[in-house]
Amino acid sequence: MPTIKLTIEYDGTAYAGWQRQPKHPTIQAVLEDALFMITQQPTPVVGAGRTDSGVHAFGQVVSFQSDKTLADTQWASALNSYLPKDIAVISSEQVPDTFHARFSAKGKVYEYRIIQQATRPALNRHRAWHYRYPLDIDAMREAMSYFVGTHDFTSFRGQRSQTINPVCTLTHLSLRHESPFLIIRIEGDRFLKQMVRAIVGTLVEVGQHKRHPSNMPDLFESKDRRTGGRTAPPHGLYLVKVLY
Amino acid sequence: MPTIKLTIEYDGTAYAGWQRQPKHPTIQAVLEDALFMITQQPTPVVGAGRTDSGVHAFGQVVSFQSDKTLADTQWASALNSYLPKDIAVISSEQVPDTFHARFSAKGKVYEYRIIQQATRPALNRHRAWHYRYPLDIDAMREAMSYFVGTHDFTSFRGQRSQTINPVCTLTHLSLRHESPFLIIRIEGDRFLKQMVRAIVGTLVEVGQHKRHPSNMPDLFESKDRRTGGRTAPPHGLYLVKVLY
Repeated sequence: MPTIKLTIEYDGTAYAGWQRQPKHPTIQAVLEDALFMITQQPTPVVGAGRTDSGVHAFGQVVSFQSDKTLADTQWASALNSYLPKDIAVISSEQVPDTFHARFSAKGKVYEYRIIQQATRPALNRHRAWHYRYPLDIDAMREAMSYFVGTHDFTSFRGQRSQTINPVCTLTHLSLRHESPFLIIRIEGDRFLKQMVRAIVGTLVEVGQHKRHPSNMPDLFESKDRRTGGRTAPPHGLYLVKVLY
Repeated sequence: MPTIKLTIEYDGTAYAGWQRQPKHPTIQAVLEDALFMITQQPTPVVGAGRTDSGVHAFGQVVSFQSDKTLADTQWASALNSYLPKDIAVISSEQVPDTFHARFSAKGKVYEYRIIQQATRPALNRHRAWHYRYPLDIDAMREAMSYFVGTHDFTSFRGQRSQTINPVCTLTHLSLRHESPFLIIRIEGDRFLKQMVRAIVGTLVEVGQHKRHPSNMPDLFESKDRRTGGRTAPPHGLYLVKVLY
């Protein structure tokens, strides 16, 4: 059966994350339902990243197999007519049968958006973490430099994480202003559960002078999640791109 | 009674515009309800711009009078605790009694956001006009130059507009890319009903080569709304700033 690769965008606000669950709406379930409308067959999909509840995506990648004869680019328009408004397929293409959205991925790019201002935002209330206190950007950048490279990220993983190998390589970590947002961009070969949010939560504590950048190596060393910073809320996080 | 000036931000998606109406929720009504919770008195507010249903604001300005003794900056935090999540007060200050949010305004700044791509957007579905066809930006910029200055904007006003004087002065009109948006910024001394949306609708027709930029003077000349372009949808429009 032909293998199809989709790139999808979604607003995660209304969903209990990517992965199918019995009682809550998820991106995967909604997408599989839309595929069933087109193929009239159960069509399981694989997502590159299992985003948490409330997390958004500009470029999640999905793969599935189907013998429905549809020109590969037509999957996007067919799916977009069945999907709800908060999920959209950006592109679709046929790929070699060896392609697997998750296992073929060489890396991922995430962005985390913060709005730093005294009063709460209205337009971006589901799109960024509202942080009331001033942040020392230079200190945050200094701390960020300790994260780039290959490390054991046990101190920055969700406590119910099931992955065995805690060693990941971050290839890029940067911070930019794009009014009204402060955007932290993170690229790496693989990510543990809630790892980006734990890194961002730690960086924000550095920005608020609750931690010193030079404290970072000790955090890695401890291999204890309790030594890391708080987990930043999900609604500031975006899966931007998957690298193959 | 002291006069208070508020600067407010709102997501217009859920509202039938700024102005109070008997049967639909409006920004003005929700704001007056929140003020009543604080002052325990009917407290009518004046808004600088009467935004239409679905139109957003980053910097709407509001004035009202109250003898409630509250430090002027405390109005913002008090109101924010009563207002729904899609409306936020950014700042509050006491101003001279001669201040009137609408009549004291010297000008306004609007921005209109377009997302030009083949497939529909998900994250910004309520934040920008999705336009499927390629746009000739140079042609749009050429057409824009005809709008700057003092003109009779009868061809670019809503048909149920009640304002008598159709002459307005636009001081600035520009177009920029801010991925994923194409943003048209318009500054002027006054604006007629649906004027920005009629200008944007016309510019987009120029961008799609349905009109030529050199056709603009004829449009002004005709003084007939039917000769202008379509009215762009409300959800791409933002009241950005009011000038005093």
